Amino acid sequence: MKFEQLLADRTRLMGVNVIREILKVVSQPGMISLAGGIPAPESFPMDKMRELTERVIDKYESNAFQYDLTEGFIPLREALVGYLGQKNIHASVDDILVASGSQGVLDALGKTLISPGDKIAVEAPTYLGALQAFNPYEPQYVRMDMDEDGLVPESLDEVLKTHTIKFIYTVPTFQNPTGRSVTLARRKQIAEIIQHHDALLIEDDPYSALRYRGEALPAIQTFAPEHVVYITTLSKILAPGLRLGICIAPQLIKKWLVIVKQGVDLHTNTFSQAIAAEYLAGGYLDEQLPKIINLYGPKLQAMLDAIEKYFPANFTWSKPEGGMFVWAEGPEGLDTEKLYWEAVKQNVAYVPGKFFYTQKGEGNATMRLNFTKSDEETIDRAIHILADVLKEACA
Amino acid sequence: MKFEQLLADRTRLMGVNVIREILKVVSQPGMISLAGGIPAPESFPMDKMRELTERVIDKYESNAFQYDLTEGFIPLREALVGYLGQKNIHASVDDILVASGSQGVLDALGKTLISPGDKIAVEAPTYLGALQAFNPYEPQYVRMDMDEDGLVPESLDEVLKTHTIKFIYTVPTFQNPTGRSVTLARRKQIAEIIQHHDALLIEDDPYSALRYRGEALPAIQTFAPEHVVYITTLSKILAPGLRLGICIAPQLIKKWLVIVKQGVDLHTNTFSQAIAAEYLAGGYLDEQLPKIINLYGPKLQAMLDAIEKYFPANFTWSKPEGGMFVWAEGPEGLDTEKLYWEAVKQNVAYVPGKFFYTQKGEGNATMRLNFTKSDEETIDRAIHILADVLKEACA
Repeated sequence: MKFEQLLADRTRLMGVNVIREILKVVSQPGMISLAGGIPAPESFPMDKMRELTERVIDKYESNAFQYDLTEGFIPLREALVGYLGQKNIHASVDDILVASGSQGVLDALGKTLISPGDKIAVEAPTYLGALQAFNPYEPQYVRMDMDEDGLVPESLDEVLKTHTIKFIYTVPTFQNPTGRSVTLARRKQIAEIIQHHDALLIEDDPYSALRYRGEALPAIQTFAPEHVVYITTLSKILAPGLRLGICIAPQLIKKWLVIVKQGVDLHTNTFSQAIAAEYLAGGYLDEQLPKIINLYGPKLQAMLDAIEKYFPANFTWSKPEGGMFVWAEGPEGLDTEKLYWEAVKQNVAYVPGKFFYTQKGEGNATMRLNFTKSDEETIDRAIHILADVLKEACA
Repeated sequence: MKFEQLLADRTRLMGVNVIREILKVVSQPGMISLAGGIPAPESFPMDKMRELTERVIDKYESNAFQYDLTEGFIPLREALVGYLGQKNIHASVDDILVASGSQGVLDALGKTLISPGDKIAVEAPTYLGALQAFNPYEPQYVRMDMDEDGLVPESLDEVLKTHTIKFIYTVPTFQNPTGRSVTLARRKQIAEIIQHHDALLIEDDPYSALRYRGEALPAIQTFAPEHVVYITTLSKILAPGLRLGICIAPQLIKKWLVIVKQGVDLHTNTFSQAIAAEYLAGGYLDEQLPKIINLYGPKLQAMLDAIEKYFPANFTWSKPEGGMFVWAEGPEGLDTEKLYWEAVKQNVAYVPGKFFYTQKGEGNATMRLNFTKSDEETIDRAIHILADVLKEACA
């Protein structure tokens, strides 16, 4: 039968993920990938997993395997109250929704909030997974400027003045893809601007726990809790395969996210949630997080050092204090998608930056470089090889 | 801020789940619930969970906790090829999609296929969770008749002749809510009808493994694999908290389900999938399934015996050979929603049947009775109490 004619109209806006197609070569033998956004398996508490799962089976018995509340497993939400409190995010058990990864939160937000044609304000560049979550609900995107200090508040203000915006989406700390962080002063400004315009902001914060140097920055949510939906994840501080995303939202929005999520997957995996509850409440994270930071910090330093050493003089790049990515930009006219295939021939992969922009023509000379998956020596070698490819192209 | 004005138009069609509100009283102390659709915790292989999780941690190490393919964990899909093959469902690893519960498959199908206003053919009554999955995509429903032998093929044919139907949704075996099964002869007829009309049918099959007597019925998919999307789940034969749904679909549809699912939750929980892979491949299911059948079979018999013994003479009910539900219907004019509150006063809960219909006014005299969660004695007592409430109402 002709299945094409059965596809919903919204599939026109989704299409095959180009980045996914491009990245298929990444799994070829011998390839050094700076492309993914994948935590190092050494960051998982593998030495504690057996103990954690046994503890869960003993403590919760069949409840860890039964249907559960759409809102999330209560012992996990109880543990999250304390975890979020340390970040000055004040939430009760009732304020917290646990979803199937941050992606599950983003999908539920899209479904709850976006009518076709609604305008969403996003950074240029922005997180691709958010666009994939929102696209099926057929929004339009309005771009906001960024610089080295993250989202430019004046650009946000201008966008809110000139458009009817359903919500603003931002990753203010160690942004994916740029690694940039919004400064403290700007966070306060952004909070004031959204309050002034009575606008809703979605603050996606997967990375703030991964800080290798410098001082912690408070979430924008802490300055404007009534106007912010805050999202975080256990993927980077426990394990991504457990698919645990967390959302704190104003009550009416949270109520709708629960209704929406019930139709999408009934509830989040109970066993994973029970493992995470014990991981947080049992103090395992307090032991594990310094290990993760000690693992990633030197990798970031190795990447920044290698870029400094090898990259052509006409490149600029971000200098993040944490997260998983460095963002590099070459001279105008450079096409990093074309160069990608040259780099791949030399067994080095990255993500061409243009894919993180909502407007065609932006970001052609940019690239995202991940440092969490490879060791320091490999990072040095890969950046060296990549730099030679770039020099050849810029020559 | 005024969050109401931010809600997407589609939320108008979703609303608060009335059934959920009604069922809140079910958790009151002393209540005997025949309302849920929840497996007995004794059906979970709790004595094997420790062994299974250890086996997974030893065998797959960090891969069991890492990001994984949207399509599903390969060792699980490999194990499913054999499991499905036993049911004469021929699928390669590439044909199988693992989602976050059957609910995850239903949501992905809705998103992939339904444009606002599209017509979906459903049984009267039908599975409520499917409606919850489809409603946000704004379909219209066209009802099809059922009788004691399940979906009436002539009604399906008539619906396909008189409407442009995007797809047919059916639960042909031990249907939720009625417990009815479509006969073998009708399965063949239905397969012919959808082939004749070149129509797509979604066959939702969560219960066929739970057969306590009688002969297994082949899936409709086996008669028309090109026209059927087949869905099953591990919730009833392993544990629902692991959230594992399975889908076999024609290739183009499967390709789109993967794209859609990537935006919804990236991929299904890896650790759960690895546990399920070992459960199937290690022969644990072969040991567990007879135990589940021996657990539930007597419960079903106890319920049928008690209904026969206590219910008023003007009631009819289904006589399922498996599954989780019995469906009872009283005389015209009976309002089982009103009676629900009388029964609850006597500490017995059920689901009023009207909620399983897409057309208002249908099913007012019907009720769904679950037998998997209570023991035989309790079932007998609950049905006795309920029968007294019914007799009073019918007197």
